[in-house]
Amino acid sequence: MRAINILENKKLEWSESNFPSISDNDVLIKISATSVNRADIVQKNGLYPPPPGGSNILGLECSGIIEKIGKNVKNRKVGEKVCALLAGGGYAEYVSCPEVQAIPIPEGINLIEASSLPEVYATCWLNLFLEANLTKGDKVLLHAGASGIGTAAIQLCKAFECESFVTAGTQEKINFCTELGATNGALRTEEPFKKIKEWSPDGVNIILDPVGGNYFEDNINVLSIEGRLVIIGLMGGIKSSINLGSILMKRQKIIGSTIRARSVSIKGRIMSDLYQNVWPFFKAKKIKPCVHAILNINDANVAHRIMEEDKNIGKIILEIN
Amino acid sequence: MRAINILENKKLEWSESNFPSISDNDVLIKISATSVNRADIVQKNGLYPPPPGGSNILGLECSGIIEKIGKNVKNRKVGEKVCALLAGGGYAEYVSCPEVQAIPIPEGINLIEASSLPEVYATCWLNLFLEANLTKGDKVLLHAGASGIGTAAIQLCKAFECESFVTAGTQEKINFCTELGATNGALRTEEPFKKIKEWSPDGVNIILDPVGGNYFEDNINVLSIEGRLVIIGLMGGIKSSINLGSILMKRQKIIGSTIRARSVSIKGRIMSDLYQNVWPFFKAKKIKPCVHAILNINDANVAHRIMEEDKNIGKIILEIN
Repeated sequence: MRAINILENKKLEWSESNFPSISDNDVLIKISATSVNRADIVQKNGLYPPPPGGSNILGLECSGIIEKIGKNVKNRKVGEKVCALLAGGGYAEYVSCPEVQAIPIPEGINLIEASSLPEVYATCWLNLFLEANLTKGDKVLLHAGASGIGTAAIQLCKAFECESFVTAGTQEKINFCTELGATNGALRTEEPFKKIKEWSPDGVNIILDPVGGNYFEDNINVLSIEGRLVIIGLMGGIKSSINLGSILMKRQKIIGSTIRARSVSIKGRIMSDLYQNVWPFFKAKKIKPCVHAILNINDANVAHRIMEEDKNIGKIILEIN
Repeated sequence: MRAINILENKKLEWSESNFPSISDNDVLIKISATSVNRADIVQKNGLYPPPPGGSNILGLECSGIIEKIGKNVKNRKVGEKVCALLAGGGYAEYVSCPEVQAIPIPEGINLIEASSLPEVYATCWLNLFLEANLTKGDKVLLHAGASGIGTAAIQLCKAFECESFVTAGTQEKINFCTELGATNGALRTEEPFKKIKEWSPDGVNIILDPVGGNYFEDNINVLSIEGRLVIIGLMGGIKSSINLGSILMKRQKIIGSTIRARSVSIKGRIMSDLYQNVWPFFKAKKIKPCVHAILNINDANVAHRIMEEDKNIGKIILEIN
């Protein structure tokens, strides 16, 4: 089969690759589309190796049609249109994954667009609900609001009756976020934390943060009593100072969270939660995919450059034919 | 009634005080004994004010006999021997508190010793189970292992089939802890974190830490993948550096936790959990109170001095007659 191979100069090339093996609990998916995540770029640059035993091929999610099932597979069947959360291997013609990580695509969403959903919705579900215990009425701060994760989180917050505040790099992105359902927003260049404090003087209940170091002390300062700061990335560095007085007296939580290295059973639980609790919002048109562009897999380098230059609003899809 | 009043020179005086009011959901307890907590010393020194509406009198726990009940009280009755978790007011002849915070004393424990149980067992239950999700087989690091909280945590870990490692200031304290059920221990003056790493090369799953700043970076270093650091005090300062790379890639959690300012409903849930899940261990002699000394309330200054000088192993009880 063909897949994206990473050349020595870090360029991506669509060329021959090994066919994935399929174990008894796996489904084999003929991929229709995959979708770009920032982690792909980090992995391409050699800084985010796949978990032990995982595929070396990039790609943390896909949509496609089930071509074959392992002998223990119970809930998926050949011919089914699914989207899947992957530990890797999505930039390819075929991928295998545990059956629990593949779920039917939402009603009303086409097979190509469905490739943009698993990673961001699984990440948001894990972090907002399972880690940070999102509760109706919570105020949520979303950094990088126009990212794939940001645009998913905004819509989940709205669907579950929570207000959100976004930060982003351009006014166009902020406008997009507020039209999508964010309550408010601020440019990251214009004292966003001052505006967050004005928006919610008692602090925000949850922060979903891909920035890390640069924002850490400001994040703690705007976090409410019993607030939860979920760190999902370190685009702004890994070092900071910490004031444990705030953490203790406000009973705050700092939670480091990545999804890729988690167990299959947790991933399965998340996908099952999404199917039951979030997919109906797609059918009801209360949540929609946010797709910046659909490119062909041959244009993977272009797709990566768009994300590297922070030009995208929402997801970039790579179609595979 | 009489209660401990704090004089201007920070001395404690047993003298006249106002009788507590009792609301519809409260029980009024004629106190038999109270027990000293480090928070009492901090409060005496003006650094830990009682929560809004709370008593100004010191004392976060007591045992005694119910003298009167509010009209909405359902599960407690006059004449019952109880021990209670208090937001304050325990250094007195009488105290009132929500009925859910008072539970029957454990079978096999006398009324005086029972005063040493509510605060430390509630704190340990909240932090080990509700916050840090203690699970059979977890390895737990307990700083200040010979403290009231330490001695309770050691026994809970053992009862729930977890191993514990303690740090403490003297070899006598460490010996006491290991006889009580701690798996291992190290003097805090002799590179304890090196020994912790040898004890559990993959890290510890839970740390219960009253130290804070001084220990923070070392705590993170010895914390396992998906480990939980629960900060319950700041005896070692409030400032530290933090390496968010470890927090993110190991999916660690930092949890600030105090019990006193929490809601009545959470305190009630904790006390109910203790009654159901921990009190049977007292009856079965698998857990015992660790009492350093029983003094009369007139000797409250002596009791505080023992704790201020870190001389106690386990709890110091103040009997009230």
